[in-house]
Amino acid sequence: MGKQGVVAVDLGGTNVRLGLVTAGGKVLRRRRIKMRTFSAKDGLLAWLAEAIDGFLSDAGPAFAARAVAIGFAGPTDSRAGRVYYAPNVGRLAGIEVASGLRRLVGLRVVVENDANCAALGEYWLGAGRGAKSLFLFTVGTGIGGSFVVDGKVWRGHDGIAGEIGHTVVMVGGPRCSCGKRGCLEALVSATAIVRDYRAALRPGRAGRAPRVAGAEAEPLEAKEVFERARSGDRRARQVIDCAARALGIGIANVFHLLNPEVILVGGGVSRAGAALLGPATEEARSAVFGPLRGRLRVRRTSLGDDAGMLGAAYLALDRRRI
Amino acid sequence: MGKQGVVAVDLGGTNVRLGLVTAGGKVLRRRRIKMRTFSAKDGLLAWLAEAIDGFLSDAGPAFAARAVAIGFAGPTDSRAGRVYYAPNVGRLAGIEVASGLRRLVGLRVVVENDANCAALGEYWLGAGRGAKSLFLFTVGTGIGGSFVVDGKVWRGHDGIAGEIGHTVVMVGGPRCSCGKRGCLEALVSATAIVRDYRAALRPGRAGRAPRVAGAEAEPLEAKEVFERARSGDRRARQVIDCAARALGIGIANVFHLLNPEVILVGGGVSRAGAALLGPATEEARSAVFGPLRGRLRVRRTSLGDDAGMLGAAYLALDRRRI
Repeated sequence: MGKQGVVAVDLGGTNVRLGLVTAGGKVLRRRRIKMRTFSAKDGLLAWLAEAIDGFLSDAGPAFAARAVAIGFAGPTDSRAGRVYYAPNVGRLAGIEVASGLRRLVGLRVVVENDANCAALGEYWLGAGRGAKSLFLFTVGTGIGGSFVVDGKVWRGHDGIAGEIGHTVVMVGGPRCSCGKRGCLEALVSATAIVRDYRAALRPGRAGRAPRVAGAEAEPLEAKEVFERARSGDRRARQVIDCAARALGIGIANVFHLLNPEVILVGGGVSRAGAALLGPATEEARSAVFGPLRGRLRVRRTSLGDDAGMLGAAYLALDRRRI
Repeated sequence: MGKQGVVAVDLGGTNVRLGLVTAGGKVLRRRRIKMRTFSAKDGLLAWLAEAIDGFLSDAGPAFAARAVAIGFAGPTDSRAGRVYYAPNVGRLAGIEVASGLRRLVGLRVVVENDANCAALGEYWLGAGRGAKSLFLFTVGTGIGGSFVVDGKVWRGHDGIAGEIGHTVVMVGGPRCSCGKRGCLEALVSATAIVRDYRAALRPGRAGRAPRVAGAEAEPLEAKEVFERARSGDRRARQVIDCAARALGIGIANVFHLLNPEVILVGGGVSRAGAALLGPATEEARSAVFGPLRGRLRVRRTSLGDDAGMLGAAYLALDRRRI
């Protein structure tokens, strides 16, 4: 007899990860494909259905898929199976992912925000195991967040809770992709780090031209800014330190408002630089009420890129979690 | 036969309100006394016990008190019956209110943070009735907050969740009473409004002396700043507008992070000026993700000064709520 489980799909801004996941959380088979953008919702859903069908048929008849779980970058109403909007896949809005995809693949489909999936994955099998409550920061191109209590995402009344990236921590601060000023995402994300480093390399108001070797070839990825900081680039260090302190403020805000048992930090940027989490935690600790400082628990996530896929699978395996 | 219920005590920064509250939420008898400060915890508890005993004996034998409920200004661990610290009553820390007071008055005692009490009161009998989830902002001398889900306060792992006043919304902003910079409380509270209006009256960097009538006699209460704004004082209007916009940012932050069904705004300052909630809600709405703007629900509280007392009673009437 073959194995049972679910197809979990993690739709990131750059890559789509597919996995066959068993009820025990074992990933039997994986695939990574490049993300695309779409001008219509039907195109996106047809493309997704094709990717899932191909993945399942390559896996052969030994695996019986009971459901499909989709982790989506964008505010999602998972109870309704709908993505409010998905900036990363082509500025689409109001995508009926669950019903649309169910028609195409013939399996039950659950859909959930990617940060919520990652948090559930870490709760199920990672750094949040056993925590009665946890808040996850995903620091990547943008900033995501998710609040998990008793193994259930706190989704809020409209399903969009957890959007820590678009909480304002600096009134009048830099412009965010969402249009507002001073969102956490505008201060800490990969995008923000690259923007600030570029600005630091340009002659500033003080009028001084940069003297850093290689300054002409401006880096395009936050990863390179972290590498330069490690090699002693003072400007890169300052930019990362600034981002880390803003992340620390975000962590302290979550501690004061939600007081979760543990706060996890994951996502591409957090992996690129250990330089981030140290000063961020330090800043957060100094911002927490004195008598409660010892209660702040900040940890790195432990599942890496698998977190979202595993969390999506966790949801599909037990629909009561939605 | 006499009536049954609880003694509810709301310990504010200025006043202590005592009430005899029935299981149906009726306040049979009230008393208001001036708050005092104390240099020792025992002194505070003895004073409280005396006030409660006096209140009960004046009520006579017709009322049978089953428990005492205390709403306390300051971070509280209600499960442990302990107040972490209470800046308003004399910088006391680690007060064992429940056990200490039980010994003195001979009744079961529950203790809870005052903002949590107010939120429970509004949930039980006020503007939050029927809401599956609500967040309350109390805007007074300071800013309190409370998150209530299914009629239960979300207290967090250490019992201190809800402290929206000490979330930072303006990195590098004005100094807060807690020592940090840019806390919501440092921008919106009565204290902040008075401070900013005073600063606005002083000759600024531009070097111009104030030309406002009565500017010499600087107002001591936020209420007066609101009154001046109403009578056309441009500086007062600007200060209140600024505070309102910061409150709007706080409201939008709560919406994005917790997405409660309804957000309530109460407290002395919110009552003093309708000028606050209008522009605050407007600012919050403009800060919310476009497709979700219609989902933001902001309301004024409806129980006024009784909210804290009633919420404390609600807790004592049903200990499962803790």
